[in-house]
Amino acid sequence: MKFISFVRQGKPAIGTVVGEGVVDLSRRTGHVELGAALRTLGLDALKDTAAKASADFALADIEAWRPVVADPGLIACAGLNYAAHVAETKREATERPTIFLRVAESQLGHEQAIKIPPESAKLDYEGEIAVVIGKRGRRISEDRAFDHIAGYSCYNDGSIRDWQLHTSQWIPGKNFQGTGAFGPWLVTTDEIGERDVLTLETRLNGEVMQHANTDLLLFPIATLIAYVSTFVTLNPGDVIVTGTPGGVGAKRQPPVFMKAGDVVEIEVSKVGVLRNRIEAE
Amino acid sequence: MKFISFVRQGKPAIGTVVGEGVVDLSRRTGHVELGAALRTLGLDALKDTAAKASADFALADIEAWRPVVADPGLIACAGLNYAAHVAETKREATERPTIFLRVAESQLGHEQAIKIPPESAKLDYEGEIAVVIGKRGRRISEDRAFDHIAGYSCYNDGSIRDWQLHTSQWIPGKNFQGTGAFGPWLVTTDEIGERDVLTLETRLNGEVMQHANTDLLLFPIATLIAYVSTFVTLNPGDVIVTGTPGGVGAKRQPPVFMKAGDVVEIEVSKVGVLRNRIEAE
Repeated sequence: MKFISFVRQGKPAIGTVVGEGVVDLSRRTGHVELGAALRTLGLDALKDTAAKASADFALADIEAWRPVVADPGLIACAGLNYAAHVAETKREATERPTIFLRVAESQLGHEQAIKIPPESAKLDYEGEIAVVIGKRGRRISEDRAFDHIAGYSCYNDGSIRDWQLHTSQWIPGKNFQGTGAFGPWLVTTDEIGERDVLTLETRLNGEVMQHANTDLLLFPIATLIAYVSTFVTLNPGDVIVTGTPGGVGAKRQPPVFMKAGDVVEIEVSKVGVLRNRIEAE
Repeated sequence: MKFISFVRQGKPAIGTVVGEGVVDLSRRTGHVELGAALRTLGLDALKDTAAKASADFALADIEAWRPVVADPGLIACAGLNYAAHVAETKREATERPTIFLRVAESQLGHEQAIKIPPESAKLDYEGEIAVVIGKRGRRISEDRAFDHIAGYSCYNDGSIRDWQLHTSQWIPGKNFQGTGAFGPWLVTTDEIGERDVLTLETRLNGEVMQHANTDLLLFPIATLIAYVSTFVTLNPGDVIVTGTPGGVGAKRQPPVFMKAGDVVEIEVSKVGVLRNRIEAE
C-alpha cells in the first residue's frame, strides 16, 4: 500500500494510491496529517480504511505533493553510514551511528522545488532511504525493529555545505527551509520484506551520481532503530533517514553544487522515484 | 503573564497563573497544548482570553507540571555560548552560533523526575534561559528579534555526557527521554523588557554550580533568533535554548554527575525556579 500527503482543492490531505487513483483518507478519518493519523488511529486501522475503499479521484488531480509525513515528531538522520561516503569526507568510521536531526519545516514534497537560499551557492544532494515508524517503542531490540516499521520512502537530505560546517554541529546546513525532499510515497512493509535489499540511486539531470544498496549500510536499519530508540521513544510517523552513499557533490573534483534548473532524482527500488527541480529562492 | 502546561484530573491542559490560582485556558480555547494554541489563536488572543478571566482552581490542584511548551515544532539549543563554558570544554569560540536540536519527547516539566538511564551514569545538568517564540518569522533581523519573543522560561538541558560524545554530533546525549526540563512557566515580555539583563543560576542540592547573566552570552538572544531564522522559519511555540555557563559537572575536578536523590534547580531572575529531582530509571 502507498500512503501519500498532498494538496487538493487548496487543502492538505492524506490518502493511498490505487492504480492511477487516490483513496481520500482525510475525508474518511478527519486527519490531514499522516503522522497524526498514524499516532491516533494506528497503521492497521488506516490500512483497513483504505483497503475497503475505492479511488475517489485521479492521481493527476493532486495539485501538489507534500512531504510523505509532514508532521513527524522526530526526523533522525544517520551520517557517515556508507564506507564510500566516510572515505570521501576523509572522516573515520565511528563505533556508534552518527545521528543528527531535521525539523519538519525543513522538508518538502515530491515535485516541489528545492530552493537555493540567497545565503549560499553550496546546495548539495544526498540520496537516502527513509524509514517511517509504524509502532511506538523505546529500547527496541534489533530483532524486533522490523515490527516497528510502517514502510519506506525516498529522501533527499539536501545540504547547504558551508552552513553545515559553520561549527562542529551540522544542524544549520541540514535544516534550511524546504531542503529535505521526502516522497513520493510511503510503501508499506507488506510490499517490502525484512530481508529485501533495497537499491538507492541519485541522478542529477539524468546522470547517476550515487548508487548503493542497503547491504552496504555500516549501521543497518535495525541497528539505527535500536540505537535511536535507546535514547528516545519512537512514535508512529517518526522518520529515520538512513544515510547517503559515496558520490556527494561537495566531494567531487571539481565539486558539483546544484543550480537553478537542475533536476535531481532519488530512486529506491520497490519504492519509486522522488523528483525535484532546483530553483533560486 | 505566566503561561503553564499541566495535568489536572488526569488530563493535559494549559493555563495562566494568577496569584495562587490558575485560569484554565483549555476549557476556554479547546487547546491542550500551548504550542498549538499559540500557532492557531496567537499570543495576543490567548493573553486577552486570560486577562478577562479569573482563576478557576488553585495552583495546588495541579497534579503534574508538563514542559511549558510540550509540542514545539523546533527546539534549537545553543552550545558553547558563554566564554567560561567554552574554556572549560577546551574548545574554541566559534564565529557562528553552535546550534543543535532537541525533540519534544526529550522534555519534562517542573517537579518531574529527571531519569538516569540504565545505559549511563553520566547525567549532567546545564542551566539555561529558554526563549519561546510568539510570532512567526524567517530571516528575522536582530533589531526586530524581540518582537518575535513570547517570553522566557528556565531550561535544564540535561545531558548524558558519554552518549553526547559517541560521535562528532551531540544529538543522542542531548535527547534522552525526559532529560530536558522546561519550566515552571513562560513569563511574557510585558514583564521582561528587551534591555533587561537576566541572571541564571544552577544549584545542585542547594550548592551554586553555575552563575551568569545574559550580558555574558557570546551570541545574544537577538543574534540566535536571527541566525536560526536564516535557515528555518520560526513558528509560535518554538523554543530557543540559549546556552549554558561555565561550571557543568563533567568538567569539574573531580567530575560531578547527578545521582538518584539529588535535587537540581535552575533559577532565572524575573522568571522563577525550575526544580527537578533525580531518579534512577
